[in-house]
Amino acid sequence: MQRMMLFERFSRSFRENPSFSKLLVVLTVSGSGLVAYSEAQSPGVPVATEASEANKKKRIVVLGTGWAATSFLKNLKDPSYDVQVISPRNYFAFTPLLPSVTCGTVESRSVVEPVRNIIRKKGVDMHYLEAECFKIDAANKKVHCRSNLNNNLNGEEEFVVDYDYLVISVGARVNTFNIPGVSENCHFLKEVEDAQRIRRTVIDCFERASLPNLSDEERKRILHFVIVGGGPTGVEFSAQLHDFVNEDVVRLYPDVKDLVKITLLEATDHILSMFDKRITAFAEEKFQRDGIQLKTGSMVVGVSDKELSTKQAKSGEKSVMPYGMVVWSTGIGTRPVIMDFMKQIGQVSRRVLATDEWLRVEGSDNIYALGDCATINQRKIMEDVSAIFSKADKDNSGTLTVKEFQEVSKDICERYPQFELHLKNHKMHTLVDLLKESKGDAVKETVEVNIEEFKSALSQVDSQMKFLPATAQVASQQGVYLAKCFNRMKECETNPEGPLRIRGEGRHRFRPFRYKHLGQFAPLGGEQTAAQLPGDWVSIGHSSQWLWYSVYASKQVSWRTRVYVISDWTRRFIFGRDSSRI
Amino acid sequence: MQRMMLFERFSRSFRENPSFSKLLVVLTVSGSGLVAYSEAQSPGVPVATEASEANKKKRIVVLGTGWAATSFLKNLKDPSYDVQVISPRNYFAFTPLLPSVTCGTVESRSVVEPVRNIIRKKGVDMHYLEAECFKIDAANKKVHCRSNLNNNLNGEEEFVVDYDYLVISVGARVNTFNIPGVSENCHFLKEVEDAQRIRRTVIDCFERASLPNLSDEERKRILHFVIVGGGPTGVEFSAQLHDFVNEDVVRLYPDVKDLVKITLLEATDHILSMFDKRITAFAEEKFQRDGIQLKTGSMVVGVSDKELSTKQAKSGEKSVMPYGMVVWSTGIGTRPVIMDFMKQIGQVSRRVLATDEWLRVEGSDNIYALGDCATINQRKIMEDVSAIFSKADKDNSGTLTVKEFQEVSKDICERYPQFELHLKNHKMHTLVDLLKESKGDAVKETVEVNIEEFKSALSQVDSQMKFLPATAQVASQQGVYLAKCFNRMKECETNPEGPLRIRGEGRHRFRPFRYKHLGQFAPLGGEQTAAQLPGDWVSIGHSSQWLWYSVYASKQVSWRTRVYVISDWTRRFIFGRDSSRI
Repeated sequence: MQRMMLFERFSRSFRENPSFSKLLVVLTVSGSGLVAYSEAQSPGVPVATEASEANKKKRIVVLGTGWAATSFLKNLKDPSYDVQVISPRNYFAFTPLLPSVTCGTVESRSVVEPVRNIIRKKGVDMHYLEAECFKIDAANKKVHCRSNLNNNLNGEEEFVVDYDYLVISVGARVNTFNIPGVSENCHFLKEVEDAQRIRRTVIDCFERASLPNLSDEERKRILHFVIVGGGPTGVEFSAQLHDFVNEDVVRLYPDVKDLVKITLLEATDHILSMFDKRITAFAEEKFQRDGIQLKTGSMVVGVSDKELSTKQAKSGEKSVMPYGMVVWSTGIGTRPVIMDFMKQIGQVSRRVLATDEWLRVEGSDNIYALGDCATINQRKIMEDVSAIFSKADKDNSGTLTVKEFQEVSKDICERYPQFELHLKNHKMHTLVDLLKESKGDAVKETVEVNIEEFKSALSQVDSQMKFLPATAQVASQQGVYLAKCFNRMKECETNPEGPLRIRGEGRHRFRPFRYKHLGQFAPLGGEQTAAQLPGDWVSIGHSSQWLWYSVYASKQVSWRTRVYVISDWTRRFIFGRDSSRI
Repeated sequence: MQRMMLFERFSRSFRENPSFSKLLVVLTVSGSGLVAYSEAQSPGVPVATEASEANKKKRIVVLGTGWAATSFLKNLKDPSYDVQVISPRNYFAFTPLLPSVTCGTVESRSVVEPVRNIIRKKGVDMHYLEAECFKIDAANKKVHCRSNLNNNLNGEEEFVVDYDYLVISVGARVNTFNIPGVSENCHFLKEVEDAQRIRRTVIDCFERASLPNLSDEERKRILHFVIVGGGPTGVEFSAQLHDFVNEDVVRLYPDVKDLVKITLLEATDHILSMFDKRITAFAEEKFQRDGIQLKTGSMVVGVSDKELSTKQAKSGEKSVMPYGMVVWSTGIGTRPVIMDFMKQIGQVSRRVLATDEWLRVEGSDNIYALGDCATINQRKIMEDVSAIFSKADKDNSGTLTVKEFQEVSKDICERYPQFELHLKNHKMHTLVDLLKESKGDAVKETVEVNIEEFKSALSQVDSQMKFLPATAQVASQQGVYLAKCFNRMKECETNPEGPLRIRGEGRHRFRPFRYKHLGQFAPLGGEQTAAQLPGDWVSIGHSSQWLWYSVYASKQVSWRTRVYVISDWTRRFIFGRDSSRI
């Protein structure tokens, strides 16, 4: 269209050649003094696709652009698929930084990456459609979508996309537990827009409280910030708000700074209950020192536009607190499109969409679900105990020998993770140890057990079953797992790598998904963070804050967001947070 | 509240000691390779105020936080005032960068600075109230305000603020010229929120056009961007959009990039008509080369949700064009609060609020108006011609001598800028030259003129009167001027420094406001800018673009925004523009 100017060529070469920008970024980052350990992977070599193959390509439709979908898309390398990504959100959001966005510690644009950038770098045919899937038609292998732009762009027009494989990763919605007034009066903290809205509202409260002709009582009401839910998000938002008040509000709104009150409500007895007790205790003590009011065992029963009603779980005592802003950060609920889909496939009685251990939706073909919209319905060992027994009893003798046990032991560990966990927790090494224990100390190495003895030995194992938490870490690992399965779909069809099929013949095609917990952070404000790492290693304080900075910088989905986030931290450090109401 | 941690102290010392951050910024900026010439002024030394003086302080109320108000606030140094700033926008926006915000070249938060930061640094008592003044009560020296937060914060409650001096700098609103459909269907580009909305809508158009089940015609409609108004803003937005399409859309939306069409409509015969003809010609040629459709002499007569109707000014030919997005960037109109105020003070027949040459609102006491909401009603020399004659004719002889002329010449030049301009344009030096010309070549140095001859000599002078353009530059200079007047209010009361009062006794307290044009930029895209500097110096191309970068970086209101803007430019250069729909 016009001559390529020197500047543009320079600029374009930067954008098209990731290693250039990495070099520059490393220089920038080193300048900012933050030692961020980086996980950069060398860009995947694009695999050439042949035009003749195009019509044979299997169509994958991915719903969503969150953690699960994005890690799936980033790791899918097999060029024999044609991928359509459908989501109303044309970007991936680094959700763990949302609490930082609410007070301007990090800018909203620094935590998002356009999904088109993510899918563009691949050797795989990937296309993105900005639309919301409102109906999954599993019988006809179609999804119904519309873009919901209710303006002159006619986004309400519907369209249909066919699939061979469907990957559902639409996430969850906020759960209001049907408490009256919550959806009308509370702020949520799930999307980037929520965080932006909270930021504006916080500023609104301070500006409004600074106006004349208000009683002190009214000012106090306006500056009463209530956070419902003592999980990591609620705790981090409280901490961020407290930091904002102490570091920036004191300068900008000196007249009203002493009227600010932050209250954190939690229905159970402790905040951060999923963390180690040491962390909970430290957080509760720090919040008390900081003047953040902590109300545990307190359930919300209703929210009006200016007041929040609570009930003490134990005493049943009711109380009412006037507020300026409420942030609702409790559990998650199922999206309507998933509810509708569950009815279709007969999962009517379930609360959440269930998949098997390979992330396949139970009761449907070629449909996978991962992330917050689904849970893995781990098969109970007791349901299969007879089948396991007869599978292991190769000579059909009616009893199992040690040798027979050992042959199936590895497969059983792989197929039923609760079995491995049970052995580990009881400090046993193999199935044999378990049987020995069940038959008493007298038993010998040459033990043989019959079916009843076998059942009794395994009877306690299923109590070790655990549901995976609805976290970014789980979703991300599921995305990687599923992409790797798709990458080796053909290879593993001929050479299955999974465990022995207990109720069928041969082996499962893939190993089941196994979650590996890498640890968890809970930023507590004042440049202090609690970290719980694998092996129950707990670290609290300023050093963990730097670990937090490093890990979150390294976990960014792109170099762009990495640089943005680090420079936001640097800019906040120098200039403080911006209080403009935009 | 808690022990001061090392990190916090370090961070706070940065924020509280501007020179620290300047040092750091200089290091940062030098690293980014941009040579920005800087205008940093050393921070004003705070002047101690005595508590006993507090009740004697004169109350200034400033309406608005735009260019005029902010430069007034930054330059007001006299601690004997108590200043209340009232504006619904708690930040100053660097409006010349708004077109850059529309396509993500610069982030919205980089072009704003909280007004509380601006007023905090002063030795003067300044307070900010986030509210909109909806009524000026000049008779009782009060303004009526409300904050318009129609939520649980009860922002609709009204309050009243008293003033001794009122400074009106509320800016203008968009002028739709009552063309049907404009306010419902067009985007404007006056506020930061407008720019953010445009950015989202541009992305919406591209996402919507990428969806299946659309005819090619519909795709073309959606990707037809129409800009109404060929002034600097409209031209710059067209250029930005074109750059965005060519630099980023080609990568992100490859399927639809060839369907994009940009049309610029201008009612007169040329775009950028306030610039030198060379610039206009260059811009028109460049746009043609770039494929931006230019329709001059084309007036909009109506806008429906999908179509825009135009009429050719000359031929009267009507046509209709389907569009996806329209940006309306034409003239400005008067805000309702100003209209109401004009009625009160008898300025009913005027289109814009009129002030005298000292920025005082005509027909009211102690009220000043500056920026886009007012125009200076320059006094015509012919209205005062008899008074000037008798003032100059000290001996009441009925004729003026050369000596008598020369004594009032300086005052007349100062009081009537059109007089100085007339002399300059006709290559004359003094009033005497003018009189000589009017009496013909035969006249001698010892000329004497009577009143009729004097009138005839001055009769053409008023044709040189010019209205000041509604630009940031004018508003900013007016703010500085007015602040300096307020700073020397007492000093000049005893020693007036202004010109002789023609229709009264003594001298005016201050010199009248005089605008000094420093030049103007018109960015044309592709890293090219047209610059018109004083003395008709015209520069077009890449070098002007760097001048533009330097000037805009240096003109930033704070070091914070300066660093933000420069790092945005750098980040865009490396990573391109972000296309996330947030």
